[in-house]
Amino acid sequence: MFKKLLSLDEAKKRIEEAFSPKPLRTEKIPLLKAVGRVLAEDVASPINVPPFHRSTVDGYAVRAEDTFGAEEDSPAALRLMGHVNVGEMSSLTVERGSTVEIVTGAPLPTNTDAVAMVENTTQKDGKILVYKPVARGENIMPSGSDIHKDETVLKRGTSVSSRELGVLAALGVMQVKVFKQPRVAIVSTGAEIVEPGKPLPPGKIYDINTTTLAAAVLESGGEPIGFGIVQDDDEELLKETLRKVIDVADAVITSGGVSVGPKDVVPQIIDKLGKPGLVVHGVAVKPGKPVAVAIIDSKPVFSLPGNPTSSLLMFHLLVRPILFRMAGKEEKPFATVKAIVTAKLFSARGRRTFVTVTLSRDNEGRWLASPVPTGQSGAITTLAKANGYVELKETQQFIEAREEVNVFLFKALED
Amino acid sequence: MFKKLLSLDEAKKRIEEAFSPKPLRTEKIPLLKAVGRVLAEDVASPINVPPFHRSTVDGYAVRAEDTFGAEEDSPAALRLMGHVNVGEMSSLTVERGSTVEIVTGAPLPTNTDAVAMVENTTQKDGKILVYKPVARGENIMPSGSDIHKDETVLKRGTSVSSRELGVLAALGVMQVKVFKQPRVAIVSTGAEIVEPGKPLPPGKIYDINTTTLAAAVLESGGEPIGFGIVQDDDEELLKETLRKVIDVADAVITSGGVSVGPKDVVPQIIDKLGKPGLVVHGVAVKPGKPVAVAIIDSKPVFSLPGNPTSSLLMFHLLVRPILFRMAGKEEKPFATVKAIVTAKLFSARGRRTFVTVTLSRDNEGRWLASPVPTGQSGAITTLAKANGYVELKETQQFIEAREEVNVFLFKALED
Repeated sequence: MFKKLLSLDEAKKRIEEAFSPKPLRTEKIPLLKAVGRVLAEDVASPINVPPFHRSTVDGYAVRAEDTFGAEEDSPAALRLMGHVNVGEMSSLTVERGSTVEIVTGAPLPTNTDAVAMVENTTQKDGKILVYKPVARGENIMPSGSDIHKDETVLKRGTSVSSRELGVLAALGVMQVKVFKQPRVAIVSTGAEIVEPGKPLPPGKIYDINTTTLAAAVLESGGEPIGFGIVQDDDEELLKETLRKVIDVADAVITSGGVSVGPKDVVPQIIDKLGKPGLVVHGVAVKPGKPVAVAIIDSKPVFSLPGNPTSSLLMFHLLVRPILFRMAGKEEKPFATVKAIVTAKLFSARGRRTFVTVTLSRDNEGRWLASPVPTGQSGAITTLAKANGYVELKETQQFIEAREEVNVFLFKALED
Repeated sequence: MFKKLLSLDEAKKRIEEAFSPKPLRTEKIPLLKAVGRVLAEDVASPINVPPFHRSTVDGYAVRAEDTFGAEEDSPAALRLMGHVNVGEMSSLTVERGSTVEIVTGAPLPTNTDAVAMVENTTQKDGKILVYKPVARGENIMPSGSDIHKDETVLKRGTSVSSRELGVLAALGVMQVKVFKQPRVAIVSTGAEIVEPGKPLPPGKIYDINTTTLAAAVLESGGEPIGFGIVQDDDEELLKETLRKVIDVADAVITSGGVSVGPKDVVPQIIDKLGKPGLVVHGVAVKPGKPVAVAIIDSKPVFSLPGNPTSSLLMFHLLVRPILFRMAGKEEKPFATVKAIVTAKLFSARGRRTFVTVTLSRDNEGRWLASPVPTGQSGAITTLAKANGYVELKETQQFIEAREEVNVFLFKALED
């Protein structure tokens, strides 16, 4: 255990020293399932793209040298051998002094090396008259000019969107190897919480954190595994459950059972489950101070507070960056907007302070950030009303009303 | 058919006049499946939150009047009747002059209306001495103070994230009614395209658009239904397929078969399938000019170009805003960043011009936008290399190198 609270930066450093997040497994999945996932290997092209010399215009496929010296008043006269359409490979071998009609996108016939645009030709007595010479390669997209066979087209670590899928489809690839999403076990503890959907006995409240944390895990590229509610007054059951959970998951998040006082059981139990055990126990932040982090069997175990807002904020600050990296993604910073605070914001002395705010626009279209009245601890509506948070550094005493600040957004704004 | 090309704004207006996008169906789904979906109804709370008067501190539940007049040197002396923990409803009825020990989060026993903080008390001879009076309601979060029973807590049309799920969980709600995702049929046409995964015959290329458009539909909140490839030289089959597709889908996207010329078959076929038929046929944009839009049986049918980059750009400009609204979401504008263009950009005279660009940072951390060399039309790698596009208005001739511009991002930046 640690006597002095760690700063947020020290806490992150301790976690970093004890655990280096990386993707653990890979899987092959169909292209469309891969949207939002991360490539686990470089992808090299099995083919040339385009696979053949392709005409980029409507016109006549020629041997370029046959058109050299052609002029407006002395056109090259070429014998028309036939026609080639898109999707068909002409069987014609074009001899000297001959040509084949071709449309945009069609493959060039054997022996041709350029296309004369239809605009620069006329037809007369079965001959094609070309009034302007073309250079070798003119109006052609050569085989492999977009992508060479064996060229690496997408790198391991690339996030997959519709555009990357387009490249994979162009190669004829159907399946792609991506990093598996980390499996994150969620355990809520507390004597007073009841699973939503069940009847609510007197004195109890519904469990919020299992749901919000599972959704936050999903939003961070992980796969949540719910483990329901464990009473925090049954230490043996709690220990047994956590032991089991650490075995099956890649990371564990608990909520509750961390208030400083007689009920601070969860971090103490976690610490005994393996080495190195707790690396962070209490952080100088507000809210979220009682947060604890352990590394057990090379897996991170996050013990978050029971208060839903604190719990979700600590998730965003400590858990999300690690899940991102376990999913193979870049650690993505929060989107921010500049806004003017509508009231003076105070910090908790010596602690990094986070004030949840609601955003609105003023008459001139500027963003205003109004602190969400947290009221009593445990209020859940504050969560849904907040668009993001404002941060006050440990050394900062307050932010004056009307000051401009960065608001870190819980999700990208939708207006 | 229309003689003059419509401007992009006129095209949007015509679509808007003929079709008003809205969600068509609803479904009830479990909370966790609802992340990213849109509520189809207002949600009212079936319970008070908290469901009971809850202590916000550790201390002693009292009748406030018993503490009135208490001072440092003349404390109120109260008889300790027992203890109440979180999650339990005390069976004690607190009489005048009595108190019950209580922890943060526990329900207040009958007859008490305030909590004296433990810091302001001592214990002596079985009595609790309270040194500071408390007002009625002090240190209590009253029943229903966060959410009243029957209060509307979430509005129809709200996008669901982890925070909204937290509110629903607090109400004990397990399932939520959301708008169904619009079913979008995708049909690729063309004589030269082959489905990825199949062998590539000479003269053919792999179909890209079915994949990119399906992924783009997913990213826009729709459910893509692939209909594979239809040869655009078989008009009867194409007509039959489109007829079938319109019957089963909420919206249809075709790609290919729209180049001006003998192969411009798709818009012509679509126009005959129902009323009002084509409302847009050709738009003064570059790339993407041959795009056509019809409304058939009150369903939008988008005929996009075969070129993958043009097709995806037209999707973003014309299709995505409509799918968003069919999914019940706000029409979300593209995220933009300010960047300095690295080369002079030219417009196509009289046409709204879109130049795809790659972003990088300069030494001072500013964004630079470099045009992606599109090379030949049909190049697929340009798609994956581009981070977004720069727009040139119809009346704008060029953008000078080093000018600052807005770059519309294909996806939010990840660095």
